Amino acid sequence: MKDSSMRGRGRPLNPVLTQRKIAGAAVSLIQSGGYRALTMAALARQLGVSASALYNHVGSKRDIMILVQDRVNQEIDCSAFDAQDWDVALERWARSYREVYARNIPLIPVMAVLPVANSPHTLAMYEKVAAGLTRAGWPRSWVVNTIVAVESLVFGSAYDAVAPDNIFDPGELSEAAPMFSAAVAHRDLSLDSRRRSPGPHGAGAETAASPADVAFDVGLRSLLAGFRVHLDALRAQEPGITSGGSDLE
Amino acid sequence: MKDSSMRGRGRPLNPVLTQRKIAGAAVSLIQSGGYRALTMAALARQLGVSASALYNHVGSKRDIMILVQDRVNQEIDCSAFDAQDWDVALERWARSYREVYARNIPLIPVMAVLPVANSPHTLAMYEKVAAGLTRAGWPRSWVVNTIVAVESLVFGSAYDAVAPDNIFDPGELSEAAPMFSAAVAHRDLSLDSRRRSPGPHGAGAETAASPADVAFDVGLRSLLAGFRVHLDALRAQEPGITSGGSDLE
Repeated sequence: MKDSSMRGRGRPLNPVLTQRKIAGAAVSLIQSGGYRALTMAALARQLGVSASALYNHVGSKRDIMILVQDRVNQEIDCSAFDAQDWDVALERWARSYREVYARNIPLIPVMAVLPVANSPHTLAMYEKVAAGLTRAGWPRSWVVNTIVAVESLVFGSAYDAVAPDNIFDPGELSEAAPMFSAAVAHRDLSLDSRRRSPGPHGAGAETAASPADVAFDVGLRSLLAGFRVHLDALRAQEPGITSGGSDLE
Repeated sequence: MKDSSMRGRGRPLNPVLTQRKIAGAAVSLIQSGGYRALTMAALARQLGVSASALYNHVGSKRDIMILVQDRVNQEIDCSAFDAQDWDVALERWARSYREVYARNIPLIPVMAVLPVANSPHTLAMYEKVAAGLTRAGWPRSWVVNTIVAVESLVFGSAYDAVAPDNIFDPGELSEAAPMFSAAVAHRDLSLDSRRRSPGPHGAGAETAASPADVAFDVGLRSLLAGFRVHLDALRAQEPGITSGGSDLE
């Protein structure tokens, strides 16, 4: 990726065009028109600059996506890893992560497969997660797979967060699927209030639980309970591992 | 959706154009060019028919997507619910589900939010899952949230299955993320062989484990372990619930 210090000699510095502004404009384009709406020409138009001025800062669409990745991931709150037990921190991180990508659905197919190299804020986030898990006694070899498992649930759940509430309505075929139809009709839509922490933005950010919120809650709590089972099994084998203050079940 | 019996009076039956063929051609278009490549005109061309002949069978792109959903979901193997314990069956279903969508990545953003109404095979699949869980003693109110949690992990993991293997390589910034870099370098890439059942297609379908396979394995086994924890807790409250033969931990 070209740095502003690398631009051609003698070209005037355009004070308007920063990597942050480029990333912001790219996010806007993708949010309104999907990933294909992001072209160098459209981005230059959105920024009110010439295409050549844009190429002065970024060499390709891939460079732009790395800027976008880093800008979007910066919104994910991973601060709980500084002070909380690993499972509380992992849960808060996952909730914030889903919330950010539910607002950025068209980015998911790209971000889910984009390498993290050259993304300083993204790496800072992963460093915080990795450090928190390692401090809590997680084997180093488990850390990346744990992160991937949480992210996979998060990306899938972000889609569900924007699905229509009637997505499982069997319609005219309900008689052909009686057990499923009964399960849909009796779906648990209550969110355990103890799990609804106000989150990083304070109580004001709390919204009513949707079916997708409840399903994500079930999935995330189950995943965390499973992680505890595996960590406990490991500790039983190797009692020297300390918990780092986590109160595991 | 128009049925062939509903086509206009006097029009000749085109024996070539079935809903199954339309769905197959639509899947091909999406696989090669993404969701946007699917237009009624392109689909008619792919099928070698006129657009009006196509409109005789399907009224809109949404109708086509429902056909596509039903055709793709038909490939997912949910037969284990007939004979296996709920957790074994849920695991096999999830593995098959991921395998099918890892081959159909461009469909995920659409399928993850498409209502299931009017999709007979999709509903038959959900019926099998719902019946299996209910028989095993799952509360009816938990069934849909369990399905959504598994599907969310599956969709996210399908993306990871097509991500480059070096996706977490921190590149030149590794010094700024030492704990994460160490975790990436020491990532566990071994798949517990006991978990690698030959699957519905026999031992021949088994392939070498990729980093994504291992991460999915960790996520899925953890999710299932968490489900067992919640079901055990419920049974402790209500001892009358039978296990339906599952050997829960």
